[in-house]
Amino acid sequence: MTAAAEMLRTYPADLGEVDRDALVRCIEQCLFCAQACTACADACLSELDDQLAMLRKCIRSDEDCADICTITARVLSRHTGYDANVTRSILQACATVCGSCGDECERHAPRHEHCRVCAEVCRRCEQACQELINALG
Amino acid sequence: MTAAAEMLRTYPADLGEVDRDALVRCIEQCLFCAQACTACADACLSELDDQLAMLRKCIRSDEDCADICTITARVLSRHTGYDANVTRSILQACATVCGSCGDECERHAPRHEHCRVCAEVCRRCEQACQELINALG
Amino acid sequence: MTAAAEMLRTYPADLGEVDRDALVRCIEQCLFCAQACTACADACLSELDDQLAMLRKCIRSDEDCADICTITARVLSRHTGYDANVTRSILQACATVCGSCGDECERHAPRHEHCRVCAEVCRRCEQACQELINALG
Amino acid sequence: MTAAAEMLRTYPADLGEVDRDALVRCIEQCLFCAQACTACADACLSELDDQLAMLRKCIRSDEDCADICTITARVLSRHTGYDANVTRSILQACATVCGSCGDECERHAPRHEHCRVCAEVCRRCEQACQELINALG
Repeated sequence: MTAAAEMLRTYPADLGEVDRDALVRCIEQCLFCAQACTACADACLSELDDQLAMLRKCIRSDEDCADICTITARVLSRHTGYDANVTRSILQACATVCGSCGDECERHAPRHEHCRVCAEVCRRCEQACQELINALG
Repeated sequence: MTAAAEMLRTYPADLGEVDRDALVRCIEQCLFCAQACTACADACLSELDDQLAMLRKCIRSDEDCADICTITARVLSRHTGYDANVTRSILQACATVCGSCGDECERHAPRHEHCRVCAEVCRRCEQACQELINALG
Repeated sequence: MTAAAEMLRTYPADLGEVDRDALVRCIEQCLFCAQACTACADACLSELDDQLAMLRKCIRSDEDCADICTITARVLSRHTGYDANVTRSILQACATVCGSCGDECERHAPRHEHCRVCAEVCRRCEQACQELINALG
Repeated sequence: MTAAAEMLRTYPADLGEVDRDALVRCIEQCLFCAQACTACADACLSELDDQLAMLRKCIRSDEDCADICTITARVLSRHTGYDANVTRSILQACATVCGSCGDECERHAPRHEHCRVCAEVCRRCEQACQELINALG
């Protein structure tokens, strides 16, 4: 269990009408996806020599996805002075990169198990971002 | 001078039709804006007791802006397996947060010089993001 | 559940004699601590006006702790070209900042529940870092 | 020019006896090194197929170095509630990773110009960290 739900519960000011379950789920999926993508980029890098060239794009997608998920979790963990435009735009970027990285990892899933695991994590994160975007209205 | 232009010049593969000047400028402005916003959040935190409450939103905007600018510089520093949708969405998020943080810092500029400096840096970064978005077509 | 254990299991090359449980635990605690500290800094910022001044140092510690934990989780998620000196030095920095942030949050725990939760998360992360340092020998 | 010197000049509280030149130089070198290492990792990834396998460790070092430099610049940009132990431990980690990444990039410098540029940036950052560690006493 992450402490994300506990931190949200103990926030001292009014949170407005936010969907707390969707928010906590999205923060957690962003954290997990950032880690999985960092690990997948590194796992790709350790594949056999003759596999490396076809994993170039996957490594790059993993790096972008790790970066954007990390920062999305941070933006979503702040509630003071809430700015819907900033939240929506970073969630949109996060859903985009998770979709793109999930697609790329899926192409390599039959051959590389870490890509299969990472693709699933990307899909869950993309969905959590979309659900939170929808919940924000 | 940052090494961003040198790193772009020594990239070993084809970069396509990217506007190199706009790209380097945007990377550099993102780096500088990330630093200025981190420093501005901390400077706000050291203001006199009776100023703190009205700087809440500024600190929060600074933190978001620092995070998103940091990651935008990273995504823009990668050229392998270029994905226009990811680049465009993170640039859009970065322009949004720089605009928002620049507005907030500007409100405090008459009273706090660090906010005045930071607002100018945010404006330059917002503009560099917009110019790169336009250059991408 | 994070995917950290799954990603470690599917790493395609030899991992050497690493203590996998200690490694996964440390990665996860770093992720959770990074999130809790980001949320605690923001919760401090939303406290009543007359509380803000005494939370300055707590907000700053939270920010440093969030940053260093985030990056420690990333370094620990990479196994290719392992460099014991880098791993040990970032783990040491992470244990230091978690200890420092845990101390600071603990001072505010009687008055602010988010600081109490965050202090516990910092303690767990500090311990996980120490155990991994010990496991590395 | 970065805004780091301007942000330091406008910090509203007492900075103590810090060596401002060494501090600004270190922040700037960390920013530049983070960018160069991100770009070098990506440039390595775009090298010819038969080069990729021997660049594994370089890509990994670049990623760690980019991460730790990014966060060191952030920690150094905060002055509120200064904690010498945290500052020293992250500077030590940063000097370590810059030394390690500089060594690795240097090995590839004769063949890959981006590694040559990146090695120089790592050396400057390592030196700036060491000088600031010495200045802190």
